Amino acid sequence: MSKLTTPHGNGSLNPLLAPEEERKSVLKRAERLRRVPMSSREVSDLLMLAMGAYTPLTGFMGAADWRGCCTDMKTADGLFWPIPITLSCESDLADGITVGDEVALVDAAGTIFGTLEVAEKYVIDRAFECSHVYRTTDVAHAGVEKVMRQGTVNLAGPVIALNEGQYAKTYPGLYYRPAETRALFQDQGWTTVAAFQTRNPMHRSHEYLAKIAVEICDGLLIHQVLGALKPGDVPAAVRVASIDALVANYFVPGTVVQAGYPIEMRYAGPREALLHAVFRQNFGCSHLVVGRDHAGLGDFYGPLDAHHIFNEIDKGSMEIQPLKIDITFHCYRCGGMATGRTCPHGEEDRLNISGTRLREMFANGEQIPMEYSRSEVLDVLRAYYDDVE
Amino acid sequence: MSKLTTPHGNGSLNPLLAPEEERKSVLKRAERLRRVPMSSREVSDLLMLAMGAYTPLTGFMGAADWRGCCTDMKTADGLFWPIPITLSCESDLADGITVGDEVALVDAAGTIFGTLEVAEKYVIDRAFECSHVYRTTDVAHAGVEKVMRQGTVNLAGPVIALNEGQYAKTYPGLYYRPAETRALFQDQGWTTVAAFQTRNPMHRSHEYLAKIAVEICDGLLIHQVLGALKPGDVPAAVRVASIDALVANYFVPGTVVQAGYPIEMRYAGPREALLHAVFRQNFGCSHLVVGRDHAGLGDFYGPLDAHHIFNEIDKGSMEIQPLKIDITFHCYRCGGMATGRTCPHGEEDRLNISGTRLREMFANGEQIPMEYSRSEVLDVLRAYYDDVE
Repeated sequence: MSKLTTPHGNGSLNPLLAPEEERKSVLKRAERLRRVPMSSREVSDLLMLAMGAYTPLTGFMGAADWRGCCTDMKTADGLFWPIPITLSCESDLADGITVGDEVALVDAAGTIFGTLEVAEKYVIDRAFECSHVYRTTDVAHAGVEKVMRQGTVNLAGPVIALNEGQYAKTYPGLYYRPAETRALFQDQGWTTVAAFQTRNPMHRSHEYLAKIAVEICDGLLIHQVLGALKPGDVPAAVRVASIDALVANYFVPGTVVQAGYPIEMRYAGPREALLHAVFRQNFGCSHLVVGRDHAGLGDFYGPLDAHHIFNEIDKGSMEIQPLKIDITFHCYRCGGMATGRTCPHGEEDRLNISGTRLREMFANGEQIPMEYSRSEVLDVLRAYYDDVE
Repeated sequence: MSKLTTPHGNGSLNPLLAPEEERKSVLKRAERLRRVPMSSREVSDLLMLAMGAYTPLTGFMGAADWRGCCTDMKTADGLFWPIPITLSCESDLADGITVGDEVALVDAAGTIFGTLEVAEKYVIDRAFECSHVYRTTDVAHAGVEKVMRQGTVNLAGPVIALNEGQYAKTYPGLYYRPAETRALFQDQGWTTVAAFQTRNPMHRSHEYLAKIAVEICDGLLIHQVLGALKPGDVPAAVRVASIDALVANYFVPGTVVQAGYPIEMRYAGPREALLHAVFRQNFGCSHLVVGRDHAGLGDFYGPLDAHHIFNEIDKGSMEIQPLKIDITFHCYRCGGMATGRTCPHGEEDRLNISGTRLREMFANGEQIPMEYSRSEVLDVLRAYYDDVE
């Protein structure tokens, strides 16, 4: 039996989803509890807790863990954790909740996703969190804006998850929990697995990144964000279809597993790259591909900040290793795909198409060069863009 | 200061070349000693010992070490060592040598390369060595043939090296000893360095292998065999010029160090791949690129035998890690360079030119496709082939 990377915190996976047979009775109890509404990001964190992706966390963090994660990327117990996982609520609602109460956690539509046993109520300095985690308090940053406009009181305590939302039904054969990806990797006989995080269709530059990972690991996990994205992003279903087309035509069978997971991006750049690594370890991965401006947004982070932060954390913070790859592109003088580390030529020799320019090319029906994207991928995207116009 | 991989055996480098100031007096003494002629392979091993590449060995191996290396890839002390390093002599010469004698080691031209303090004389089963080390006793194998026709008695003991031959003079700026490559790597601030072993000019498939290594390591050592080669191989000087042309035009400055070293290939396939790894650790490398049929010859080894053997040795045998890469080629359907692990297409889509066919193309003045080799490299080789015809 192949030996995969141990779950984070050196124990076993800790999914917080109630066992099927208990769910009904807990739900019945929850229906009579006071309801705490969650933001879409909080729902996505609860789903990550539910599936075991946030192992070994047992729920939403208290004040000491929150502060430790902000300042030192460690919980009060010394566990490495780069971004606090918290639940906020408005102060008038919080006033009616007493420590020791159990509350029901609901999404914007009122669906119960779980319960929280309130162990702590506390008020945070939201700007303090943002300046540590996001390196900015500028509300033009979508992740920061969500923190700054969240409720003023945080509720903390152990969680029981009751609901995994629509993902499993919407993406059959894609929504895999950490125990399931581990089983898939074991079935393939893999020991080392690189995770490739994506929230976009994969063009040739992404394919190239992924193939470098295939060279040095037993297998590749193409791991798609199924949670909420930025406006203008291609919908998950279209992206999935385009990635399917790429994998079917340009990857060797038996080297790739595809999966999706329910996080909502924070766009916290380097700190989020660390979080991406930690939970990929739970999914059974030994490596995380960290490209240029990983989990970044606009110009908020330097293009290699997410590479550098892996050198700044204590050794032994996690088992998984970053696979740091510079910017990738087609270079006409190299006559092939290359990266900033392997191509000595100038910008004038390199093919660069921005996301905006690409959308414009689709809109105008312009020919997109085969050096930029596979025709099979472009066909899928073209059908989508033709539809939305 | 960056931390490179420790020399093999967990100590410091152990070059056996006598310090400059002692060389004259030892040489004077050696001139009066009985002379033991070395084969060209034995000379090359002495040079490897001299420069510290065979750290922590102190000389030619005795019977217990020889047997342990053949059967278990370990010396009597438990040091991992995959190929015995021995010195042979004819029995009539051996008859005149007594344990405790010091003898002078000379090459075919009679030049003194060092002295050996004879600690042991022993007779080996040469077929036993070949069947373990080379996996064959077929004298059609050039490495086997050298063992089978060597003298019947082995002499063992500590060595003092006095001469490094012509390499340093012939290849200035290329002949670097392990202490020197380590200093070069330190100067660059590298911690992880991949060694790329070559005895041939580098075409695009070799460039691609090397560039995968550049992606995951701080730097690349292109490490050329300067010792004797197979008939038909391109001479070292031509190969060096062609690799210089490649590096100057297609690698990013500051990512590559070139060096040459004096080994004579044994073509022992998987066992030699392990030896290549062990001494690359002494040169300061953290990784060795192990391609298809590494150090192989004809059809004596399976194409991936040199990959598999790294899984078969005990963990902790060495610090350096193999970077196993499948066969590399240009694939017209992929539209770029690829390997057996990343290209799902058939042979009919791939560009394959054998060494024999390539020489034929040069001889006929045929156009060699740019997908096979860089024009700057072809120019150097074309000039050589035009000259030899």
